[in-house]
Amino acid sequence: MEKQDQLLMKKQNKNLVLDIIKNKSPISRTEVAKVTGMSPTSITRIVSELHSQGFVRETELVTSGVGRKATLLDVCRDVLYTIGVEIDKLIIKIGIVDYVGEMAAWLSIPRDEAESYDETLMKVNRGMRDLIEKHQLPFEKIIGIGVGLPGSIDYMNGLVKVSDQLKWKHARLADDLKRLTGFDVIIDNELKMKVIAENFKGMARDSQNAVLVGIGSGIGAAIILNGEIYRGDSNNAGEIGHTVIDPTGNVCNCGKIGCLATYISEGAIIADSKKIKNIQSIDEVFAAYRKRDSWAINIMDRTTTYIALALSNILCLYNPEVIILSGDTIEKLPELKGEIERKCELYIWEPIKDTLKVVYSGLSNQGVVLGAALQVQNSLLDLD
Amino acid sequence: MEKQDQLLMKKQNKNLVLDIIKNKSPISRTEVAKVTGMSPTSITRIVSELHSQGFVRETELVTSGVGRKATLLDVCRDVLYTIGVEIDKLIIKIGIVDYVGEMAAWLSIPRDEAESYDETLMKVNRGMRDLIEKHQLPFEKIIGIGVGLPGSIDYMNGLVKVSDQLKWKHARLADDLKRLTGFDVIIDNELKMKVIAENFKGMARDSQNAVLVGIGSGIGAAIILNGEIYRGDSNNAGEIGHTVIDPTGNVCNCGKIGCLATYISEGAIIADSKKIKNIQSIDEVFAAYRKRDSWAINIMDRTTTYIALALSNILCLYNPEVIILSGDTIEKLPELKGEIERKCELYIWEPIKDTLKVVYSGLSNQGVVLGAALQVQNSLLDLD
Repeated sequence: MEKQDQLLMKKQNKNLVLDIIKNKSPISRTEVAKVTGMSPTSITRIVSELHSQGFVRETELVTSGVGRKATLLDVCRDVLYTIGVEIDKLIIKIGIVDYVGEMAAWLSIPRDEAESYDETLMKVNRGMRDLIEKHQLPFEKIIGIGVGLPGSIDYMNGLVKVSDQLKWKHARLADDLKRLTGFDVIIDNELKMKVIAENFKGMARDSQNAVLVGIGSGIGAAIILNGEIYRGDSNNAGEIGHTVIDPTGNVCNCGKIGCLATYISEGAIIADSKKIKNIQSIDEVFAAYRKRDSWAINIMDRTTTYIALALSNILCLYNPEVIILSGDTIEKLPELKGEIERKCELYIWEPIKDTLKVVYSGLSNQGVVLGAALQVQNSLLDLD
Repeated sequence: MEKQDQLLMKKQNKNLVLDIIKNKSPISRTEVAKVTGMSPTSITRIVSELHSQGFVRETELVTSGVGRKATLLDVCRDVLYTIGVEIDKLIIKIGIVDYVGEMAAWLSIPRDEAESYDETLMKVNRGMRDLIEKHQLPFEKIIGIGVGLPGSIDYMNGLVKVSDQLKWKHARLADDLKRLTGFDVIIDNELKMKVIAENFKGMARDSQNAVLVGIGSGIGAAIILNGEIYRGDSNNAGEIGHTVIDPTGNVCNCGKIGCLATYISEGAIIADSKKIKNIQSIDEVFAAYRKRDSWAINIMDRTTTYIALALSNILCLYNPEVIILSGDTIEKLPELKGEIERKCELYIWEPIKDTLKVVYSGLSNQGVVLGAALQVQNSLLDLD
């Protein structure tokens, strides 16, 4: 076998062993050998390397029954850290995540809708430095920053093509933030970052095949296929908001007729509400719904119908194990959940109705930050 | 490195070398070494094994310019054969395909709509044996049969759950055909088989990411993601016919309102045509369309609108490199192509309009058979 093939194989084996220790710890060397099918000799050599690199430590545990002490392996959660950032219209969230995906530090800072791109970046830098200092985290162990934000993102070039919510256009966010902070930076759409977190420890844990649907100022979907983000040919997969759901329906600001977004997005709900009352914000609509104002109930009834239809269409096309619903609309008005479920009963195609599992994100507040931090590990950690 | 790891690696390397010779032949050993990154010694050893197993042969070629003769490698196309079968309502097609995916023999037999399951299977067996005999193909080189048919197929267990077109239900097709023919049998939905062929040598050649849309008695989609068929969690991915496109629209026989199939499928077109005229078949509708009968033009106009909307929705969700349109409707009435394209101009979401590539299957007559035969190679060929 060739030298370079052997090196690649060695690296793959090392990654495999580390993954197993990370996911099944505490675990004995014998058990690792059994799971991987590698020899005890190979395992001992690899573990010793991982130990000297700081990834793995030994723990001692009394085995039940026999009373003989067995040496078990665990990963060192503090071997490295990654920083996750969520930038939204009115808030910036920053989290520092350790090697096993636990939040070691957390901070959220208000953002002013009117503040400039540079101001926001400076806030991120300052917040991050405050956090590192406050929690006395060693700088050299931080391998990079991941940022999740709303909008159309060219993740490969670290470019924000356009973010209506943040009013940014053609911003070289990854480069600019790297210059400011000194860290490597990756960026992506917030839903894509969030689905990484859902796949790691949320409702899509270890799922090969899951769809995260976000409903709020827009409606979009992030998709996990074969355990990875599915992006499509030009990173536009999951643009459910512009699927046509009624060809004789509402005009969409994209120029088409009957896009799903025109029935579900906050902007569409507010625009229709204004026909009845001088409504300024989605919160006022939700308040009217809670007061049982019939116009608000009618509008939200239509919204839940279209949400159920959207879930049905996603199910027909992607046939995922699980659909995770998230976003401001569901979080601010959780009463909608029951409605959506009742309508799913009606609108899901019979032959696959049983396979449908609609759940709600349990990571809502920290999901984007956690996913962004985890994605830094996935993208930037190279185990020699 | 462990023994079993080495064996696996050896097998992978052998497959890699064979793939490269298959795809880039004629090719020199030096070139194979360069492409794979393996050493000339390894390549010589692997090629020698492949040679003795009958997969690879040497050819001689004069290199241009220098005049020195170089030994090049090619695969032996007759090292093995696979049989592809398409069973449709009124026709059975059988093809024998060689190792490089060329059709070595071809036969089509009429099928009677009223004929029984057993009669159809006997026709397949007889047709296959006639073909083998006529072309004097060696039995021992045939590694199996692949069957593509319309309906809901449990490909893993070789079971036809239901095929409305063939009027089959709960048929253990793979087992029954194996008993009859003596060959191993795999089965799958016809569109899934066809997309394999499109991916191999058709309009989605080498595409990582393609969708084949079939429009005829039903409407469905088969999806290639990362170079493989994407099935979803319960093999229902691509059920575009039951996505809702108009919640206040037509009642579908599935019990929902506004499914895409109710605007596009032959049955739907015929049912609506009957409101005007005593129409019995789709051919009569198409004839009326060609005679410019206004009712037929109106109905088909609605059909092309919904086809374009369906393509738009597929594009938004899957964002494929290419969408291939196929099926009876397009084949029998190719005049629709222009209409569909004009409507796509209107209905495709602006930001991804440029990425859309709608093409038409060029394999229509042999696509399912070829794909089924290729899938036998993919599934049953194990290179020791």
